[in-house]
Amino acid sequence: MRITEIREKAVKLDVNIRNAVFAFDDMTTSIVALITDVVRDGVPVTGFAFNSTGRYACGAQMRDRFIPRILRQDPDSLVDEARGNFDPDAVLRAMMFGEKPAGDLERSVGIGTIEVALWDAMAKIEGLPLHRLIADRYGDGTSADSVFCYVGGGWYSPGETPESLKDEMRGYLDQGYTLVKAKVGGLSIDDDVRRIETILSVLDGGHQLAVDANCGLSPARALEYAERLKPFGLRWFEEPVHPVDFDAMSGFVAAYGNPAAAGENLFSVEDFRNLFRYAGFRPGTDLVNIDVPQSYGIGTCAKILETGRSFGWAPASFIPHGGNQMSLACALGFGMGMCEAYPHVFGAFSGYADGARVRDGYLPAPQLPGVGFEGQNELYSLFRDLAA
Amino acid sequence: MRITEIREKAVKLDVNIRNAVFAFDDMTTSIVALITDVVRDGVPVTGFAFNSTGRYACGAQMRDRFIPRILRQDPDSLVDEARGNFDPDAVLRAMMFGEKPAGDLERSVGIGTIEVALWDAMAKIEGLPLHRLIADRYGDGTSADSVFCYVGGGWYSPGETPESLKDEMRGYLDQGYTLVKAKVGGLSIDDDVRRIETILSVLDGGHQLAVDANCGLSPARALEYAERLKPFGLRWFEEPVHPVDFDAMSGFVAAYGNPAAAGENLFSVEDFRNLFRYAGFRPGTDLVNIDVPQSYGIGTCAKILETGRSFGWAPASFIPHGGNQMSLACALGFGMGMCEAYPHVFGAFSGYADGARVRDGYLPAPQLPGVGFEGQNELYSLFRDLAA
Repeated sequence: MRITEIREKAVKLDVNIRNAVFAFDDMTTSIVALITDVVRDGVPVTGFAFNSTGRYACGAQMRDRFIPRILRQDPDSLVDEARGNFDPDAVLRAMMFGEKPAGDLERSVGIGTIEVALWDAMAKIEGLPLHRLIADRYGDGTSADSVFCYVGGGWYSPGETPESLKDEMRGYLDQGYTLVKAKVGGLSIDDDVRRIETILSVLDGGHQLAVDANCGLSPARALEYAERLKPFGLRWFEEPVHPVDFDAMSGFVAAYGNPAAAGENLFSVEDFRNLFRYAGFRPGTDLVNIDVPQSYGIGTCAKILETGRSFGWAPASFIPHGGNQMSLACALGFGMGMCEAYPHVFGAFSGYADGARVRDGYLPAPQLPGVGFEGQNELYSLFRDLAA
Repeated sequence: MRITEIREKAVKLDVNIRNAVFAFDDMTTSIVALITDVVRDGVPVTGFAFNSTGRYACGAQMRDRFIPRILRQDPDSLVDEARGNFDPDAVLRAMMFGEKPAGDLERSVGIGTIEVALWDAMAKIEGLPLHRLIADRYGDGTSADSVFCYVGGGWYSPGETPESLKDEMRGYLDQGYTLVKAKVGGLSIDDDVRRIETILSVLDGGHQLAVDANCGLSPARALEYAERLKPFGLRWFEEPVHPVDFDAMSGFVAAYGNPAAAGENLFSVEDFRNLFRYAGFRPGTDLVNIDVPQSYGIGTCAKILETGRSFGWAPASFIPHGGNQMSLACALGFGMGMCEAYPHVFGAFSGYADGARVRDGYLPAPQLPGVGFEGQNELYSLFRDLAA
């Protein structure tokens, strides 16, 4: 068995939103098709993935470095003979040849996207949903029937009014969600507090709301937000400060007291270890976000969880970044605490299987082999065209 | 005055060397020409730069994001009216639009290379060597007539023998250098110690030799090297461990005692601040390396030095990574402790002005306006073709 070809293409995200630090106007993502010579149902198994959202397409790195480094290997060296499937660690090692340590993001997105596409193919080869394959390899082989899913909403939109914001939140509740997240840090603190009060007016209480500053606050301003937002008893406060300013994070955690979250802008085992070491984060209270395709993929996610375990962190304290089928498979397969959804925000690149419905906050586990992109008509048409 | 065009091109490095962690076989770099409408000596001023060595070409990011973001600005917004020259901070802000915090290297190389090319143009507009312009903007306007320069040599080469290694080192001494650096970590510790003893046999003592593990040692192995190499009294021990494993670095520093060095694989103010905070580094004893074009460029280098100052670090404790005219300008302009040279290693991309000679370890300051690439015939021909 061998990987016969890997194709990639940059696709523009058709979105018009902003958070505390930037607008998504020109944002792109790379879609990948990894074609194998393994035949299932009469056709060669092809794995798919995209590079999540918020970091730009990375086709040049894939074309110039990662794809040729895989295809020039002896195919047998990329196979796990005992399991009769590809060996994701060997494929990762091949892609990492000639790379200096650190500075990860320049390569971790391209490598991670190809790696997730490989796992999609591996799961299809075994006829399993990806979450089951992940649970087989890294857990006890079982994965839950559903996972808690919250909405990453409340973006700053042009023309927003208190009524439109309340309508947005009511819409999420009507869709079956029981926890929503809203942006902070893009307005004055007084305006942000008023916005939170507006949202809370349609919720049952602070436990139904999380906030996300997308690293947009200075250390001093983060402390002001900590003081002003603490009385609301929100579910968590995400990324108050710069992702690697661990001292500022630690100061925020101490001042805020309530749960904090961070991690979606860390991309390596070493960076996450620094978060565990230096950020003042409390296992069991705070939450760790991880963007799997942007951080070298599923094998590295397992290593990050293992590193977390050595610092006292359970998988249930992790949340995958990116509301999509890949993060859903990781949440279920690794036993993470919940996953995220962005209804109507990132177009084809957000959301889950077309028929999937959230009930009382829980999203059912996908049953299709692989990631399950085949159940997302609009997104899958992009992949199908790439593989054709 | 305006930037009329920015061109880039990937060039393959023609080298065949390795350090503890990888080979340079497929390494590329991006060369940049930033063309302005300012006329000097009858021709439009053009700034040049390349993205140093060890990280791959980054043309896609420049073409897709950084160059269009500069060229779509109102040209007046990129000019520092008071100084009658371009405003590098405004150009950096333009390039950073739409970028998420952290994960710096994915953009810091492309942005830094364009930024250094801008400084080359700015210095040419003022008719000054770049080191003088840097000293004007960030210091007292003066820069030294020469700077201490050591050789980054002793790479692991196919077919190396003790005699060839000694010949290499004698050659550096004959060329006027008084300090050399050699790789460690690519052999067994016993073989590395023998190699160090071989090199020391042609030097005056440990103060003439530094070593560099290029982050290739595990924390435990780094401690073994600390113990075995401590008695040699070497000038410094560079990058024993992973660049952001600050705990391992701190453990190494405590065990080794003698001077350590690190930093060339950090790419942002925030990452350097973590080095100052967590690595156990001692101002006045240890050394900090910085690759300027790979870390957002000269303006960010000034910010990193300023951050260092707040932790007690003087510019003299910094060494620019990359033995080339750009790092020489930074060493002189910022008053750093020394610079590096790689005679015959990175082809056109290493070395200084064709006529420049090291005397008693010191390299004379360049006098041509700008970086001074025009004094490097082989390299300048690449730039000239790009700008033609």
